[in-house]
Amino acid sequence: MKIEYTLLKKEKNTEARRGKIKTNYGTFDTPMFMPVGTQASVKTLSPEELKECHSGIILANTYHLWLRPGEDVINHAGGLHQFMNWDGPILTDSGGFQVFSLAKPKDISEEGVHFKNIYNGDSLILTPEKSIEVQNKLDSDIAMSFDECVGFPHTRKYVEDSVERTIRWARRGKEAFHNDRQSLFGIVQGAEYEDLRKHCVEELVKMDFDGYSIGGTAVGEPKDLQYKQVEYSCKYLPKDKVRYLMGVGDPIDIVENTIRGVDIFDCVAPTRLARHGHFYTMQGKKNIKNSQYKEDFTPIEEACDCYCCKHYTKAYIHHLIKCEETFGQRLLSIHNIRFLTRLTEDLRKAIENDTILEYREQFIKNYYEK
Amino acid sequence: MKIEYTLLKKEKNTEARRGKIKTNYGTFDTPMFMPVGTQASVKTLSPEELKECHSGIILANTYHLWLRPGEDVINHAGGLHQFMNWDGPILTDSGGFQVFSLAKPKDISEEGVHFKNIYNGDSLILTPEKSIEVQNKLDSDIAMSFDECVGFPHTRKYVEDSVERTIRWARRGKEAFHNDRQSLFGIVQGAEYEDLRKHCVEELVKMDFDGYSIGGTAVGEPKDLQYKQVEYSCKYLPKDKVRYLMGVGDPIDIVENTIRGVDIFDCVAPTRLARHGHFYTMQGKKNIKNSQYKEDFTPIEEACDCYCCKHYTKAYIHHLIKCEETFGQRLLSIHNIRFLTRLTEDLRKAIENDTILEYREQFIKNYYEK
Repeated sequence: MKIEYTLLKKEKNTEARRGKIKTNYGTFDTPMFMPVGTQASVKTLSPEELKECHSGIILANTYHLWLRPGEDVINHAGGLHQFMNWDGPILTDSGGFQVFSLAKPKDISEEGVHFKNIYNGDSLILTPEKSIEVQNKLDSDIAMSFDECVGFPHTRKYVEDSVERTIRWARRGKEAFHNDRQSLFGIVQGAEYEDLRKHCVEELVKMDFDGYSIGGTAVGEPKDLQYKQVEYSCKYLPKDKVRYLMGVGDPIDIVENTIRGVDIFDCVAPTRLARHGHFYTMQGKKNIKNSQYKEDFTPIEEACDCYCCKHYTKAYIHHLIKCEETFGQRLLSIHNIRFLTRLTEDLRKAIENDTILEYREQFIKNYYEK
Repeated sequence: MKIEYTLLKKEKNTEARRGKIKTNYGTFDTPMFMPVGTQASVKTLSPEELKECHSGIILANTYHLWLRPGEDVINHAGGLHQFMNWDGPILTDSGGFQVFSLAKPKDISEEGVHFKNIYNGDSLILTPEKSIEVQNKLDSDIAMSFDECVGFPHTRKYVEDSVERTIRWARRGKEAFHNDRQSLFGIVQGAEYEDLRKHCVEELVKMDFDGYSIGGTAVGEPKDLQYKQVEYSCKYLPKDKVRYLMGVGDPIDIVENTIRGVDIFDCVAPTRLARHGHFYTMQGKKNIKNSQYKEDFTPIEEACDCYCCKHYTKAYIHHLIKCEETFGQRLLSIHNIRFLTRLTEDLRKAIENDTILEYREQFIKNYYEK
């Protein structure tokens, strides 16, 4: 079956929404933060640990899995869930962001994006049809249309042309799509131009996707511009379909964009930051390598219910990260993911209580002013 | 309390022994394989995973913990068990092996071993008293005397002098020892010379240690020489005290030295090999990177009960290791440790049944001839 999105409640004072999404692999609440399992593994973590972090859904990268091990290997395994032993929902991206950001030199044509395989130098082309074929074979729960992710800064003329191409590519992908168990999202582009975002939404909605993603964020734009892009997209998106903001996971951005009507977020930050010793707290982001933690025998966050905070001290994790022990990275990854899923739990409660603006005020005060 | 070793049964045809060791942190069976947690972490693994591997005891390295984070930090944490969240038994080595193998340049005097701190270049000296002081503070269950680990090859004259020094150092360490909850082992040196091993054992036994270690192995000597060194040590060691063979963990060496009367083994191999994609099977050691595993959707070992073999396929682990995902290293580390603890379980059964020579024959046939 396709996913089923249910809008449970809209917050009184903002565009924030509380909802739930039913998939073939279980139901999860929104707003939700989605950890990233780039290569069919959320770095350092087991599926059981992800469950304990209350990760309702995870993301896997089509680009990486297409190149290694190849979509056929995963298809022969019985799909991505079986391959990686994850029995919860999975969303795959289209590979678009990666061919634009990782694979160079590149050349964009109407057909698709030409680039070199970083592992063996082969010339490759990723097209809307190929992206869908790969995702159909990966058998994720939610697939993305292949879009052009425009960088920042850019010209209006470029964005105009690019939005039209993204719409044509979305149509081609939808026609090529063949997997009854999988849902397909359209991706809203248009940068910071409200009319282009509106136009893109309208054309995508005509095609009737199972949900909509907001793209062109997390490409180096200022935060206020990001929030505008989200506003200009959500304003025109249908209320009864889920909205996924791609690549955004900074705590304040989760708060601000939930307020603007986003349901799902993803970001590599919690695991990437963990590998460098950074950890989130409600009093801001900190680094465990700081010498002040050498003999600090308290948990990362007293109020946190994660495995890391229940059993380990800052002093121990300080030692592990200083010694480059991967168990330290693992503990901080668990904490950072759980921090973001706790944040979405808080936001869901604030939506229930119509207090999300107060929550934002308090959050900013704690996170930035201490 | 000190550890209590109970000899439960001697195998009829060999020197192999079945026993159990009671500690302040639980009782475990012997023969036992002990995973190595060099820097207060068995690389990539959690304490819960080690428990699931049926690791009855783990080893931590005094040299590494002395340099980072320092014994005082761990002491202030409440000891090594609290620091690393491991509530099972812990054995610490003396630091001797590391100052001889890792720290260069070095200079051996009667006082101890002079060397440079690899992290900051400071001149340091490790003495029998300092080694014991550090271990007393780490508060492991079993501490080791500081000995001179003689390399291979060597001259008889050098070994003669070295054994005398090891005996004098053992006496100094025993006098400096102050921790009622901790047991202290003497270390038998003497290389491949039976008379020197005998002399060393006799002098150590006069000092009445809580158990005895066999040293001077795993330094590059041929296997037949290693087995002789073990024979020449066990032959003279008291039956009612536990015997620990330091640094040895190759599967065949565990079998051969159990037959010669050893109770405890340790080795970094299962975790180090895992990080390079190697895994043990009863049909020999293999490498998951081999392309034959790309679409092999069977577990590492069908008969294995570990977390890795219960839930993951060779194809998935092949992919993870090729992509340098640490979750792959983690899965193979679990399997490799469990392989060695299963091997000791098999050996315990064979001792009960007086069939250890048949077990060895079958093991060699399977492990080397396929």
